[in-house]
Amino acid sequence: MPGEKLLRRHALSIFRAAVQAANPRRTVLAALEKEALSRYRRIFAVGAGKASAAMAQAAEQALGRRIHGGWINTKDGHLAPLRRIRLHEASHPVPDARGVEGARRIAGIAAHAGEGDLVLCLISGGASALLPLPLEPVTLEEKQETTRLLLACGATIHEINAVRKHLSAIKGGRLARLAQPAHVLALLLSDVVGDPLDVIGSGPAAPDTSTFAAAWAVIEKYHLQEKIPPPARRLLQDGLAGRIEETPKPGDACFRNTRNVIVGSNRLAVDAAARKARELGYRPLVLSTTIEGETRDIAGMHAAIAREIVATGRPARPPVCVISGGETTVTLRGQGRGGRNQEFALAAAIALEGLPGVLAFSAGTDGTDGPTDAAGAMAGGTTLARAAAAGMDARQALRENDSYPFFERLGDLVMTGPTGTNVMDVRLMLVRGR
Amino acid sequence: MPGEKLLRRHALSIFRAAVQAANPRRTVLAALEKEALSRYRRIFAVGAGKASAAMAQAAEQALGRRIHGGWINTKDGHLAPLRRIRLHEASHPVPDARGVEGARRIAGIAAHAGEGDLVLCLISGGASALLPLPLEPVTLEEKQETTRLLLACGATIHEINAVRKHLSAIKGGRLARLAQPAHVLALLLSDVVGDPLDVIGSGPAAPDTSTFAAAWAVIEKYHLQEKIPPPARRLLQDGLAGRIEETPKPGDACFRNTRNVIVGSNRLAVDAAARKARELGYRPLVLSTTIEGETRDIAGMHAAIAREIVATGRPARPPVCVISGGETTVTLRGQGRGGRNQEFALAAAIALEGLPGVLAFSAGTDGTDGPTDAAGAMAGGTTLARAAAAGMDARQALRENDSYPFFERLGDLVMTGPTGTNVMDVRLMLVRGR
Repeated sequence: MPGEKLLRRHALSIFRAAVQAANPRRTVLAALEKEALSRYRRIFAVGAGKASAAMAQAAEQALGRRIHGGWINTKDGHLAPLRRIRLHEASHPVPDARGVEGARRIAGIAAHAGEGDLVLCLISGGASALLPLPLEPVTLEEKQETTRLLLACGATIHEINAVRKHLSAIKGGRLARLAQPAHVLALLLSDVVGDPLDVIGSGPAAPDTSTFAAAWAVIEKYHLQEKIPPPARRLLQDGLAGRIEETPKPGDACFRNTRNVIVGSNRLAVDAAARKARELGYRPLVLSTTIEGETRDIAGMHAAIAREIVATGRPARPPVCVISGGETTVTLRGQGRGGRNQEFALAAAIALEGLPGVLAFSAGTDGTDGPTDAAGAMAGGTTLARAAAAGMDARQALRENDSYPFFERLGDLVMTGPTGTNVMDVRLMLVRGR
Repeated sequence: MPGEKLLRRHALSIFRAAVQAANPRRTVLAALEKEALSRYRRIFAVGAGKASAAMAQAAEQALGRRIHGGWINTKDGHLAPLRRIRLHEASHPVPDARGVEGARRIAGIAAHAGEGDLVLCLISGGASALLPLPLEPVTLEEKQETTRLLLACGATIHEINAVRKHLSAIKGGRLARLAQPAHVLALLLSDVVGDPLDVIGSGPAAPDTSTFAAAWAVIEKYHLQEKIPPPARRLLQDGLAGRIEETPKPGDACFRNTRNVIVGSNRLAVDAAARKARELGYRPLVLSTTIEGETRDIAGMHAAIAREIVATGRPARPPVCVISGGETTVTLRGQGRGGRNQEFALAAAIALEGLPGVLAFSAGTDGTDGPTDAAGAMAGGTTLARAAAAGMDARQALRENDSYPFFERLGDLVMTGPTGTNVMDVRLMLVRGR
């Protein structure tokens, strides 16, 4: 099947282009090149996130001795050699005291920066958990307990964020205010669907549209007034009564000196994938970069679009490369091994059975799909027949959420190793047709 | 909000065009106009399905006294006045003895037709259940029991069809063979995703690719050899041993005189919607006519595409009318009232909250959505705010599968009454943008 082999090579090459476009070193270097940084007296680099060490390394490469100092909270083991910026490991996804210690240092650096200085803020996925700084006297444990209670009630992520930001001394734009009168340039590697500035890393340098009143309304909505730890309750009530300064809102003076720049995101990765696909002779069709939902249903809809392209040349005539981004979820039903991207490929394989000239591809840009060492997998019209020949039943594997052994056996896993970035997933449907 | 009002009017007008294109009278008249029917000695009209009375009426209108006679099995109450063709009511979705009696008459008419005659076969949704004719000595009850056992094992619809066709005296192309040496023209109003000729009404005039061997393999796969009724088992084993004639396969002589024509289908309805959308000034973007899957996830993906169009002008620049067809499913979690189309609109409303210039629309072409009197519903960026003002919580309503009262209260139900056709659902996303 030389046709399918070619599709596989193309898919991998398109995916590589997407990941490359989100490379933290490359994107930070490119962003800093565009900035007129010579006008600042001193530059301090702070930040948090799983890719922030790599971002800081690029900042050092670009700015050298112009960096006066700085502090980065990174996840345990997510390291890069730094000379002028202090690299500090902390716990992720559950924050710990090391994270608090580092966040306090970062807040201190921002407060210390003065007129004519720049605070360069390097934020990547994981920053929310890696930058914990509860407003005193609330402790980290009390803040976490409040979050846990909200999660258990089924509060939405927006509701939870409104509460969390108002319990934080550094999120919700407070870092930008701390840094005044210095300027703030936040470079963001976004792992959030839609790239909302106030959600990426909980928006340390972004205006906050929520209020103490909104935060308290959430607590009341879920009847948690008597359940959350008393210091958290008192703090929210003090805020509500105007006894604590609000998070800075859009239009706040501190944002005159502050900019947030998305240097890497799913959208930029998908753009790069589209360019590469066009280079390889495909009509790129970007569906959306904000796709969430149950993986097997999303895969089914992608397959339905591929089938329509083959049958009627709609929504575009082949050769087409359908591209979508975002991050889907998997409701676990079985005991198998796999990840959302591999499950996407497995569900697509079933939906595409027998259809020639089509390849489905899905992989995480961080190189890790669920608790496996694969980034994702690919599947085409022949996958089910090849699986059956190897004694495997795709439907059974899907029922068991057992996509990893399925694709491992077929040699159709996508293996990249850790890529050093994370801008969610990229899915492709290459359609050459009959 | 005059903008949203206009979008609503446009959506309804696009949907009406889609339904109109699948009108059984219109489509049968148009199809018969294209046929050179004067060359036949006699014309017999047979058929089954919920819209087959209307199809027969159109055939009488087109052919008048040229129709020599005929028989239609229709669902109880699904009537139309006929003069020359006998209309016979039977049970749907569970077949009954009246259905068997009618099917026997239809088989008799086909067998009676001779050289130079035409058997016009009018098939629409529901025909599988309305045309039951088990191969003797298997009884209707025994055939149904076999289907029930297969369903309970989780057999796929393809597997079930392989078995059912081989227990039938009229499905799987057997009607076409019975009619020889007469010609057969089957006009099909398709309610099946992808319009497979051998699945619509179980393909009475279509080549069957399954075999007795495949049917028996299904029985063995689910270990039902000892569980299915003994007459069904013996019949399948007799077939396997070559003691019963196989269903006619592709290339069989009987198909030289036989044609199957899709006169109405989701694809044709979607085509008409696309034309109407273009007429109204939208760029039509047909995603697929074969979309299945869990409604709320499919709605989320449609909304993600709409958001992308607003944010980046991809996959098409506004004004865009995204169109998709097929039929989704709803996993019931709550006790509410609604249907898949109303649930689509509800999930879309949540995903589109606050987004201006976007309208989501979903409705069943038969005018009935689930156990409600609505065809579907529509929702836009203001729906959640309007609902909140009326004291309703959209997320709560979705959790309860309670979409009908939600949209009834807002006045956003789509009410058409019975349309006399069924080519699944049509979904629209009108995107004008900001």
